[in-house]
Amino acid sequence: MNKKVKPTTLSGFMELLPEDQIKFNIMKQILKESYELFGFFPLDTPILEKSEVLLAKAGGETEQQIYRFLKGNTDITMRFDLTVPLAKYVAKNYNDIIFPFKRYQIGKVYRGERAQKGRYREFYQADIDIIGDGELNVVNDAEIPSIIYNVFKNLGLSDFTIRINNRKILNGFFEMININDKKTEVIRIIDKREKIGTSNFIKELHDLKLSNESCEKIIKFLEIKGDGEKIINELLKFDNKTDTFIKGVEELKVVYNYIANFGVPDENYMIDLTIARGLDYYTGTVYETTFNKHPEIGSICSGGRYDDLAEHYTSKKLPGVGISIGLTRLFSILHEMDYINDINDSPADVLIIPMINDISWAINTSTKFRTKNIKTQIYFEEKKLKNKISYANRNNILFVVFLGDEELKKDKITLRNMNSGEQNLLSVDEAIKVIKNELLLKNEEIINIK
Amino acid sequence: MNKKVKPTTLSGFMELLPEDQIKFNIMKQILKESYELFGFFPLDTPILEKSEVLLAKAGGETEQQIYRFLKGNTDITMRFDLTVPLAKYVAKNYNDIIFPFKRYQIGKVYRGERAQKGRYREFYQADIDIIGDGELNVVNDAEIPSIIYNVFKNLGLSDFTIRINNRKILNGFFEMININDKKTEVIRIIDKREKIGTSNFIKELHDLKLSNESCEKIIKFLEIKGDGEKIINELLKFDNKTDTFIKGVEELKVVYNYIANFGVPDENYMIDLTIARGLDYYTGTVYETTFNKHPEIGSICSGGRYDDLAEHYTSKKLPGVGISIGLTRLFSILHEMDYINDINDSPADVLIIPMINDISWAINTSTKFRTKNIKTQIYFEEKKLKNKISYANRNNILFVVFLGDEELKKDKITLRNMNSGEQNLLSVDEAIKVIKNELLLKNEEIINIK
Repeated sequence: MNKKVKPTTLSGFMELLPEDQIKFNIMKQILKESYELFGFFPLDTPILEKSEVLLAKAGGETEQQIYRFLKGNTDITMRFDLTVPLAKYVAKNYNDIIFPFKRYQIGKVYRGERAQKGRYREFYQADIDIIGDGELNVVNDAEIPSIIYNVFKNLGLSDFTIRINNRKILNGFFEMININDKKTEVIRIIDKREKIGTSNFIKELHDLKLSNESCEKIIKFLEIKGDGEKIINELLKFDNKTDTFIKGVEELKVVYNYIANFGVPDENYMIDLTIARGLDYYTGTVYETTFNKHPEIGSICSGGRYDDLAEHYTSKKLPGVGISIGLTRLFSILHEMDYINDINDSPADVLIIPMINDISWAINTSTKFRTKNIKTQIYFEEKKLKNKISYANRNNILFVVFLGDEELKKDKITLRNMNSGEQNLLSVDEAIKVIKNELLLKNEEIINIK
Repeated sequence: MNKKVKPTTLSGFMELLPEDQIKFNIMKQILKESYELFGFFPLDTPILEKSEVLLAKAGGETEQQIYRFLKGNTDITMRFDLTVPLAKYVAKNYNDIIFPFKRYQIGKVYRGERAQKGRYREFYQADIDIIGDGELNVVNDAEIPSIIYNVFKNLGLSDFTIRINNRKILNGFFEMININDKKTEVIRIIDKREKIGTSNFIKELHDLKLSNESCEKIIKFLEIKGDGEKIINELLKFDNKTDTFIKGVEELKVVYNYIANFGVPDENYMIDLTIARGLDYYTGTVYETTFNKHPEIGSICSGGRYDDLAEHYTSKKLPGVGISIGLTRLFSILHEMDYINDINDSPADVLIIPMINDISWAINTSTKFRTKNIKTQIYFEEKKLKNKISYANRNNILFVVFLGDEELKKDKITLRNMNSGEQNLLSVDEAIKVIKNELLLKNEEIINIK
C-alpha cells in the first residue's frame, strides 16, 4: 500500500491532544455534576432530525448556517442548538413527562459558519431548562443564577459577574416613552452597546429618528446603576409606569431577593438594565455572565425566561427558563488565558515498571491497585529503563512502582513519587495508603483551575 | 400560530424518556470509569470528517450505509465507527503522541442501515485501543479481557464469558490442511456457525468443494474444547505445525496464562477456537463476549489484535489491540431483559416542599444540602400538597422535606423517607446525616443491575 491519504481534520472542528482532552473532560464532568446537584434530568437527543422538525421555526439566517442533506428521501438537518430538540422532545413526550420538567443536556451542535478564530462549526453546548405545564413560578428564575454560580465556582473561577435584567422592564419602558414601534431596533442597538462604545451607541439611536427627548430618556435609563435595591427603587420612581413595566420590576425583585438565599455571594451578581438578549424569544428574566477582567470576551453563559417553548409543535403552553454555556468556546478561552494549566491531565496515578521477566507479580500488583480505585498502567514494552521512566514523566504520572529481584525477594515494591523524587521500599498495602493520601491532596487542587 | 409540525424522531434513532436516560448515563459512566481505571486517555474526535479521510479504506458495503453529503465544496461523511477516526488521529498527531498510546472513546456513530428491531442508525460505541509504535508486546492482549471483565462486573453482570482465540492459529491450521486459497470463505462460515447450526455449517463447508478430508479436519478442529491448558496441549500435538500456527499458540498461551493475574475469575473466560472475527483486519488475538444464558444475542463486546492501524494515512507501522462495546444495543438488550429495573433513576435525592409563603428558609435549606453534595430540588409551583407529593413519588425521589409554621417555630425540618414512610422532625444537620447514610446504602445497590 503506497498511496496515502493526508490525515486532516475539518476546519472549525476542535480535536484535542490527549492531555488537553482530559482537561476538557474534567470541565465537562464538573458541568454535569453541578447541574445534577440541582436535580436536573439528563437528556440526550439525536444529532440528526427531520428538517421540517428542526426548521419549524427557523428563519433565513439559520438556514444558511445549517448542515442539511438528503438521505434517501429523507430531508435531514444536524441540530444547531439544544433548544429546538428540547421543544420537540417535550411536545412529543408531553404525556410521559412530569412537570415542572428540569433537564440538562451537554452535546455537540453544528453550525456551518465561516471558520474564524474562536468560532467552531462543531461545538458543545451545555444547557439547562426548567419547563412548566401552563405556568412556571418566577422563583425558578431565582434558582438559575445559583446554578451558574456553582458551575463557575466548581470550575475554579471566581472573578465573574452574573448580570440580570427583565425584558418586561425594557418593553414597559419603551411603552412609557412611546417608542414601541421601534422596540426591535432599539433592543438590537442596546445589545451591541458594549461592543460599539457609547458615542456610536448614541449615534445609532439618533439614526433611528427617535426624538431627542426619547434618546435622552433611553440613555439616562441605561445609566441607572448601583446595587439591586437602589436600582429597583429608581425604577419604582418612574411616574407613568405601565403594567408590563410594573410586572417586570416585581419579577426582578423576586429574583433579586432570593439569589442570596441560594448562596450566591454579592460580588458575583448584579442587576444590569443594559442586558437585552436578542429579539423575540425571551419574555422575562434574562441573564448574561462575564469575566470581570475580560469584558471583551462577552457573555460566557446566557439565557432567560420564555413564554412558550414548543409553540411550533403543540398548542400546550409550555413556559420555561434556561441557560446555555458554549463549552467548546469556554474551554478555548480558558486555555488561551492559561487558566487551565493546573488541571491534572495524567491518564493514570501509577505506572508499574516490571524489572524481571516474570510479569505475573506486576500484574497482580496492578490488580490490587485497581481494586482500590487507583488508576494503574503497567509498562509492558521492552525498552531501556530510561524510556520507561520518560513515559511516566511525559504522561505526568505521579507514581512509579519498580518490581525487580530485590523487591521480589523481600515481597515489597519500590514506590517513587515522581514530583518529590522520594523513593521507598513498601508493602503493597503501605504503598496503596501513600498513593491514596497523595491523590486526596491532588484532588483538592484539581478544583483550582485558576 | 396555528399550523403545527408533528414532533417526531427519525426512525432508528434512540431517544429515551428521562428515567431511562438516567439509567443509560449511569451505564455510560461505568464504562468511562472502568476504562480510566486502566489508565486510558479519553478521546473525542469530530463526528464529521472529510469523505476522502473516512473512506480511505472503506469498501462498497460501507459506502452504501454511510451518511455522506456536500457542504459547499466539501465532501463530508459522518463517522461510522471510532476506529477510522482513531487511525487518522494517530497518524496526524504521531509526533505529539506518547506510545504505547492507550485511549478510550465513547461516542455516537452513524450507519444508514435498514431500520429494524435492535438496529440503530445512530448509536454509541465505547472503544478502547492500545497502539504501539512499530511494535506492541503481546502481554497487552492479556490485559484486554480484564478490562472487559471489569466493565461487565461494574455493570452488575456476572453470567458472561469472554471467548478468546488467535487468528494465527486459524490461519496456520488452514496452511496445515492446504486450504489457504479458501481461507476467507471458510472463516466467513465459521463466523456464522452459531447462527446457522451445525448441519448447515457442514453443508456450507462441503459447498465450498473442499475435500471430505479437509471438511472432517475443520470440524474436528473446531470441536477441540476444554480448559485452556488442555486446548493448548491439543494444539501442540498437531504434527505438521507451521510457523504461523506455532506463533499463534504461543501468543494464546501468554494471553491465557496472565489473565488470572489480572483478576478475571475462571468462569468468565475461555479459549474458543471457533471465534474468527471477520476477514482481514485482525491478525492475532481475537475476543468475543457472550451472555451464558442468551447465546442468541451474539457478542456484546468484541475486538482483537491488528498489525497496522493507520496504513492508509502513514507508512509508520502502528500495531494495536482493542475492543468495542455497542452501548446503545447493549442498553436496549438489558432493558428488554428487565436487567436494569433496579438502577436508581431519580434525578434528585431530596425534594423540599415549602408550606409557608416565605420560601427563603426552603432555599437556605436547599443550599445547605447541596453544599453537602445532596442532589436537591425545591417544589416552587402553587399546587395542592397531594400534587407536590405525587411529584416526588413519580420522580422516585427518596426524601421529602416539609417546611411549615410548626417547623419554622422549632427551627427544625420534617424529613420523610418515601420508601419507608418514616417521618421525623430533625435539625438540618441531623437530616443531612440521615440522608447521607441512606444514600451510601443506595449507592451500594446501584451497582447491582442484575
